[in-house]
Amino acid sequence: MIFHHNAWHAAARAIELDRTLRARSIAGVHVLMYCKQDGTIAATSNICPHRFAPLDRGTLVGDAVRCKYHGLEFGSDGRCVHNPHTDRIDAKMHIRSFPIVERHGYAWIWLGESALADPAKIPDLSAFEDGDRYHSVHSYLDADYRYDILVDNLLDLSHADYLHVGSFAVEPAEKTTIDVREDNDDVIVERLQLRCPRPPFVPSGPDVVDMRTIIHWHPGQVITFRIDMAPAGQDFPADESFKFYHIATPADEARTHYFMGLRCAGPKDPRADEAMRLTQVNVIENEDGPMLEAIDRIMEGRELMEMRPLVLPVDKGAMRVRRVMKRLLAVEAGAEHSAAAGAGHPASAEV
Amino acid sequence: MIFHHNAWHAAARAIELDRTLRARSIAGVHVLMYCKQDGTIAATSNICPHRFAPLDRGTLVGDAVRCKYHGLEFGSDGRCVHNPHTDRIDAKMHIRSFPIVERHGYAWIWLGESALADPAKIPDLSAFEDGDRYHSVHSYLDADYRYDILVDNLLDLSHADYLHVGSFAVEPAEKTTIDVREDNDDVIVERLQLRCPRPPFVPSGPDVVDMRTIIHWHPGQVITFRIDMAPAGQDFPADESFKFYHIATPADEARTHYFMGLRCAGPKDPRADEAMRLTQVNVIENEDGPMLEAIDRIMEGRELMEMRPLVLPVDKGAMRVRRVMKRLLAVEAGAEHSAAAGAGHPASAEV
Amino acid sequence: MIFHHNAWHAAARAIELDRTLRARSIAGVHVLMYCKQDGTIAATSNICPHRFAPLDRGTLVGDAVRCKYHGLEFGSDGRCVHNPHTDRIDAKMHIRSFPIVERHGYAWIWLGESALADPAKIPDLSAFEDGDRYHSVHSYLDADYRYDILVDNLLDLSHADYLHVGSFAVEPAEKTTIDVREDNDDVIVERLQLRCPRPPFVPSGPDVVDMRTIIHWHPGQVITFRIDMAPAGQDFPADESFKFYHIATPADEARTHYFMGLRCAGPKDPRADEAMRLTQVNVIENEDGPMLEAIDRIMEGRELMEMRPLVLPVDKGAMRVRRVMKRLLAVEAGAEHSAAAGAGHPASAEV
Repeated sequence: MIFHHNAWHAAARAIELDRTLRARSIAGVHVLMYCKQDGTIAATSNICPHRFAPLDRGTLVGDAVRCKYHGLEFGSDGRCVHNPHTDRIDAKMHIRSFPIVERHGYAWIWLGESALADPAKIPDLSAFEDGDRYHSVHSYLDADYRYDILVDNLLDLSHADYLHVGSFAVEPAEKTTIDVREDNDDVIVERLQLRCPRPPFVPSGPDVVDMRTIIHWHPGQVITFRIDMAPAGQDFPADESFKFYHIATPADEARTHYFMGLRCAGPKDPRADEAMRLTQVNVIENEDGPMLEAIDRIMEGRELMEMRPLVLPVDKGAMRVRRVMKRLLAVEAGAEHSAAAGAGHPASAEV
Repeated sequence: MIFHHNAWHAAARAIELDRTLRARSIAGVHVLMYCKQDGTIAATSNICPHRFAPLDRGTLVGDAVRCKYHGLEFGSDGRCVHNPHTDRIDAKMHIRSFPIVERHGYAWIWLGESALADPAKIPDLSAFEDGDRYHSVHSYLDADYRYDILVDNLLDLSHADYLHVGSFAVEPAEKTTIDVREDNDDVIVERLQLRCPRPPFVPSGPDVVDMRTIIHWHPGQVITFRIDMAPAGQDFPADESFKFYHIATPADEARTHYFMGLRCAGPKDPRADEAMRLTQVNVIENEDGPMLEAIDRIMEGRELMEMRPLVLPVDKGAMRVRRVMKRLLAVEAGAEHSAAAGAGHPASAEV
Repeated sequence: MIFHHNAWHAAARAIELDRTLRARSIAGVHVLMYCKQDGTIAATSNICPHRFAPLDRGTLVGDAVRCKYHGLEFGSDGRCVHNPHTDRIDAKMHIRSFPIVERHGYAWIWLGESALADPAKIPDLSAFEDGDRYHSVHSYLDADYRYDILVDNLLDLSHADYLHVGSFAVEPAEKTTIDVREDNDDVIVERLQLRCPRPPFVPSGPDVVDMRTIIHWHPGQVITFRIDMAPAGQDFPADESFKFYHIATPADEARTHYFMGLRCAGPKDPRADEAMRLTQVNVIENEDGPMLEAIDRIMEGRELMEMRPLVLPVDKGAMRVRRVMKRLLAVEAGAEHSAAAGAGHPASAEV
């Protein structure tokens, strides 16, 4: 599996990070994260270049990390700042550091070419920040399946009618259309369900409604959902009815950091909010999770497209995402090739 | 490991199957089994060609299976009979179905070329069906070792004298001969033990007996045993003294579906029958099982013949079976080659 | 991983061995060990050449081992001495036996070319035998990491100042030098710490001391430690202050038999001795162990030098050992090549 590094990935909920050293495998890279004394977040490789000790077993000395094995110290920029065994410090002793930015409640990491790390490209999750009219609830799952199986699942909500019977399933609409478009490197899927019975999770309102679901995929596997609902034949209101997001940060070839959240209306209410949070996470854990794990086992590490799947019209969004990912990975591979041919960075002992 | 598909394999005890969807890996194939409304058994691939979801998580709709992930439905013949996402159904949407026949209390599956699936070739286990004079007891083990290590074990009963001390071991006979012959694709081993002390598991009778053990191996790894006993020097009686069978259905490269049974005389007696059943299964679980698992671990997935084992005269039967299997696999590979070169079947997305 | 077989490896504490059959994987070889009737130790392959049954499941018949599966018997020299199935015994039926010598409380095995197995090359651990003035305590760990990661750890004690804070860590000396030399195939590291605060584990004495640590590495991964201490500026006393040893016998690609011991002064005292033993083993289990396991996981089976580690001056000893090992392995590979080309031994069915 080739991972996409020139993208912002959600590495952690911001509140997870403090002056503790936290290790996390992200898109195949062993990453170390912690808060500096000024409260900003630092991210470096978690592996000491000397004997490959995991640095999260060490300690913070100011904003530097001291390796627990032989005492080398690395600044938050990855530079070796102290070598207790000799006065010499040279380029081979530095480790990689990664651009990491706190925004919308998440720590966003850029594992690829630092020069390309433009914070303006961080996916907009501002709708899920807490405000006067709305607030959000958030969950995390350490998922035992590959990220792309999850992204496929999220891009095609037709599965809800079968996998989520009794929870999110909706009676068939008179007419359903799917429209897929690209916006720069994002993919937007618009699913229109005309004249369908009011979903069971909407307690009151007209019996027959029109529903519009807009699924917005960003590279970095961040996916926001917006659902609009109106009495059949009428215009959708300006305010979306439901808003939630799913983030499928690849951990490694086998696992996924699955972050998700849900927007709630009105003031915070711990009891009601926890019930809302569980509505989302329970369905994922008990309905999607076992299915995706089972598929992951059947695939035995093979790539989906190598297995020549049957492609249905409902896969339009998922297939477009795969096409964009293929293009982005090709661009990234080309850029790496040029960088390697050019003057380049100091050689890294990073593994 | 190359599996033999042009053979009848025992897939399940018939009583295991009902209107529940049952998945089982057989000779490397993910198989789905269930009873149709008319009571006959159906077997298809367990993998949906769309997203590789395991179909046993779905539900029966009449005699068709509806996939739990996106609702495709497949008839018991493997044909896609309903696609809820579009009206189109084409050949790429079908899955494989497999001939499966209920006989002698087992469901027999044919995973290879359907045209060759002749029910007349199903091994004859009629002696183990319940009747007036006899009835049988049956067991199943999900064995954590490769099927061929088990078949070797069963084809050479000389191991009983060492591995089964205190249970099935017999004092040495004055003379032991082994005769091996082939009958079409079956292998028959006849072991004659002349003038040996009466075995400990035969409570009464003459002190010195002649014993004849006939081991009948069928492709599909079905092995029946018949033991005849007579006072030394006399003719064997027409009725065999003991009758049992072992079936080593390959599951995958590492595991085996181990079915076994034992014929008991007289009317059924739940208490005595369970004691008989445990006589067989306890020895297999506690004496053969640990040895075969240990050998399996030492072999580390290598093929026996590649490891150049020492071959002893007692291996005559096991070696003949390996020769027949080699021939059958070569024939099967040749047939597949011809089929691939010919007009062939609709391409399958089967994995 | 290529193992070094032309060396004496510690296979077991002598007291572990008796008339029980003990199997142990040593440097990638499945070894069987037991005491013969005369009390000396025998070592052979643990694998029967017939069906690859592990012989330790069998039984001793005099000094021979009877295989539990089909009754072949092998003498302590590896020769097949009984074949119950036919009178013939030929060279293909023999298994390998290995020179094994009891000395200094250990059973030392030679897995390579028997003709080269010179007991004079067994590492001298006589200092750890019980005597009038001293006695020793000993421990064993079944370590879940590769032996060479452990040897690197032991050859460079600078890690103690970081990993063993609160246990073995010592305040910095005014001057530290490291001298490395070879003595035939041994590597000797002499570390001199001048004018350092008295270590916390030395309860009384001058406040400022000189310390000399002599680390003696023998092929077979046996490492003895001698620490001398004196008031700063004075000559070291003739008697070393501390003496201990560590042995990193490779088990296989992933695990290590970790034997260790510590010399105690004065008469035996079960309570005090157990406290001393735990001083050593607790630090290894709770401080080194988790670090070495974590490094082992990060290395994912790759060889250290292929990962191009940063090399520090403190690695001088470890690097010299790696150079010697490379030379010894090259010599061994060359010798095997010549042996294979020459008249050679009877072909072995050993796996």
